[in-house]
Amino acid sequence: MNKIEPRTLKGFRDFLPAQMRKRQYVINTLKQVFESYGFEQLETPALEYEEILSGKYGEEGDKLMYRFKDNGDRLVALRYDQTVPLARVAAQYLNELPLPFKRYQISNVWRGENTQAGRFREFTQCDIDTIGSANLLSDAQTIACTIACLKALGFEKFKVLINDRNVFTYFKTSFDIENEKLIPIIRIVDKLKKIGEEGVIGELATLGFSEDQASEIFSKIKEIEAPESVNKILSYLKNLGVDEGLFEFYPLLARGLDYYTSTIFEIEVDGYETGSVAGGGRYDELIGMFSNQSIPAVGAAFGFDRVIEAMETLNLFPDLTKVPNVRVLVCVFNEELLAKSIELLNYIRKTGLNAELYDNPADKLEKQIKYADKKGIMYAAIIGPDELNTNTVTIKNLRIKDQQTISWEDMLKVI
Amino acid sequence: MNKIEPRTLKGFRDFLPAQMRKRQYVINTLKQVFESYGFEQLETPALEYEEILSGKYGEEGDKLMYRFKDNGDRLVALRYDQTVPLARVAAQYLNELPLPFKRYQISNVWRGENTQAGRFREFTQCDIDTIGSANLLSDAQTIACTIACLKALGFEKFKVLINDRNVFTYFKTSFDIENEKLIPIIRIVDKLKKIGEEGVIGELATLGFSEDQASEIFSKIKEIEAPESVNKILSYLKNLGVDEGLFEFYPLLARGLDYYTSTIFEIEVDGYETGSVAGGGRYDELIGMFSNQSIPAVGAAFGFDRVIEAMETLNLFPDLTKVPNVRVLVCVFNEELLAKSIELLNYIRKTGLNAELYDNPADKLEKQIKYADKKGIMYAAIIGPDELNTNTVTIKNLRIKDQQTISWEDMLKVI
Repeated sequence: MNKIEPRTLKGFRDFLPAQMRKRQYVINTLKQVFESYGFEQLETPALEYEEILSGKYGEEGDKLMYRFKDNGDRLVALRYDQTVPLARVAAQYLNELPLPFKRYQISNVWRGENTQAGRFREFTQCDIDTIGSANLLSDAQTIACTIACLKALGFEKFKVLINDRNVFTYFKTSFDIENEKLIPIIRIVDKLKKIGEEGVIGELATLGFSEDQASEIFSKIKEIEAPESVNKILSYLKNLGVDEGLFEFYPLLARGLDYYTSTIFEIEVDGYETGSVAGGGRYDELIGMFSNQSIPAVGAAFGFDRVIEAMETLNLFPDLTKVPNVRVLVCVFNEELLAKSIELLNYIRKTGLNAELYDNPADKLEKQIKYADKKGIMYAAIIGPDELNTNTVTIKNLRIKDQQTISWEDMLKVI
Repeated sequence: MNKIEPRTLKGFRDFLPAQMRKRQYVINTLKQVFESYGFEQLETPALEYEEILSGKYGEEGDKLMYRFKDNGDRLVALRYDQTVPLARVAAQYLNELPLPFKRYQISNVWRGENTQAGRFREFTQCDIDTIGSANLLSDAQTIACTIACLKALGFEKFKVLINDRNVFTYFKTSFDIENEKLIPIIRIVDKLKKIGEEGVIGELATLGFSEDQASEIFSKIKEIEAPESVNKILSYLKNLGVDEGLFEFYPLLARGLDYYTSTIFEIEVDGYETGSVAGGGRYDELIGMFSNQSIPAVGAAFGFDRVIEAMETLNLFPDLTKVPNVRVLVCVFNEELLAKSIELLNYIRKTGLNAELYDNPADKLEKQIKYADKKGIMYAAIIGPDELNTNTVTIKNLRIKDQQTISWEDMLKVI
């Protein structure tokens, strides 16, 4: 039989234990904050009817979505984000859910992105959303929770940029812009940080605006004052005790997704320039696509990979390689001494401490200790013929490379 | 625009918060036990190259697998189990991993099962596996860890049935059976519990055995004595302190998957007849498909949905609806009193207690309290005009339907 080359698809990743520890640390931290703010966990299927997802993410979304016919010839698509499935859930179970429905979801989404741009085709999203409240207090609480999450992860210097998409609609009147050009304009303005002022003006020109007009659009955007909605959110945030240095009105913020209707926000972290680590906004029309009732909604999403990358850049992770769950590796000197080693294992476990028994009595002690060290286990316990005769145990501290041969009882004091 | 009917695909499920709490409880319990035994978490992609997965799960697997061409015309398939991806990982990163590599994985798999049989097309698997140890101590530790998990979940009466697939190979010599009939025979014997002795004899007859031969095969299986390998595992389990009433040699156990090579086991829970809640075995040939080295492996998998169903049947869940993370809902009497309510919210949060602020000041108090009750929040705190004037707060205990108006400080003592 020919060997099959072991490999993963481009844009897809294996996460080995060392990376998983980081991911779990971030997920657990986020979950704790989410739940302390009253958000509850939801899970939706990886596969949906294609019609549920298509047309919700703009042209690009329809292009990047993974879709196919299943064995029953149904047109299906892989989850592209967590918001559209949430909208479906809200419409489908409206009477069962407490309203406002505050839920979080942490799961993978799939997009056929260009991997050369450093993007992944499978990545984790962490979202909080509040369904059924049109009150701006929900927008403010969403932002406050997002800020609390970043603080819990150890971020100190960051800024939430807040805008209201409706500030852009005044274009339509002041520049007599056709409706279908509004979104393209917003998208172009959204690139300001990436392509600079000249780049934006240039791209606006491709929409049919003369350079003068483009330049005028651009300068007008910069003069926009915070609308009442944003002012209210800012004042709620102050009330909620959020440090005023952490948020501001930013009229150039546009964000890419089609479904936002008013409030939008994004978070930029000082010292991490790749892009925003979290963002969100209000989307009052989306759920209406699945329901006869119009249901307002607001939410935030964390860019999970960016959060981890930013934490690595800023050195915010505690030393997770040195805190494994297992405290002691009980080594096995040889097959004859195995029973005694198991006795020691049971003795340690009875105290509530976690101990692992090495799997292969035939392996040399040196290999066994290397194994413990590689896994970050702090102590190795060995019972050889001498220890058997004297009813002792040799306990090695693998961190400080120290060892002593003592009674089992004394060993418990050491570890 | 036409409304899109909000619906899920057959065999796929949404998990609302109440169900998620149960699922998270089980997952957290399993993770804790897995990690205490030295297993570390791994994650692999949902999508793999089709060639990695195809041909590993027998004919049925190839039929039920979700496969399609992605946008780049690559033939891909959705994860069908967690063992084959693990085998790929082991071959791909052999030099990076500590050996033996003890990993756990908890993720979803997809199979186009017949949903009328009560099966799901998306379901969660929880696996532990030990790669790189041929020693039977690993088989025993795998079974011991599985038993520890079930005990941690509250199961008391259950039985691990243990067998070695090699007991079946003696058929070939004693009955002169062709090689290709061995697996079909094992599969048929595996159905004993479902279709009874007569059913098994009948099905064996369809393979070309006369009723006498079939009957003889069947009676011979029943007479099989435990092979040395199983006896060794049983003795390790005793050494490891596992209650002897919880495991036994069972020569009729066959299990369905093609890749097991020797040890196989399954766990049956008293009072839950749907089927085994966990099972596993040794598969020493699988990893060799991806590597020039032969790498032994042994593992166990929990049927996550069955575990939950069995726990529901046997009433093993603690009252999870009554332990939400949020202790107090701070109600909002009206927009004018919002600032004061937020002050109270911040006051409570500073003590480290989790408090949620109700999102919509326009909603009636009655609705707000109903919301807290529906979410299982124990206390509701209200500041109305009277409380504002007297600098007090009305605190309602929603569990015992009691309320009192007291100072903020006294409220902290109550909650």
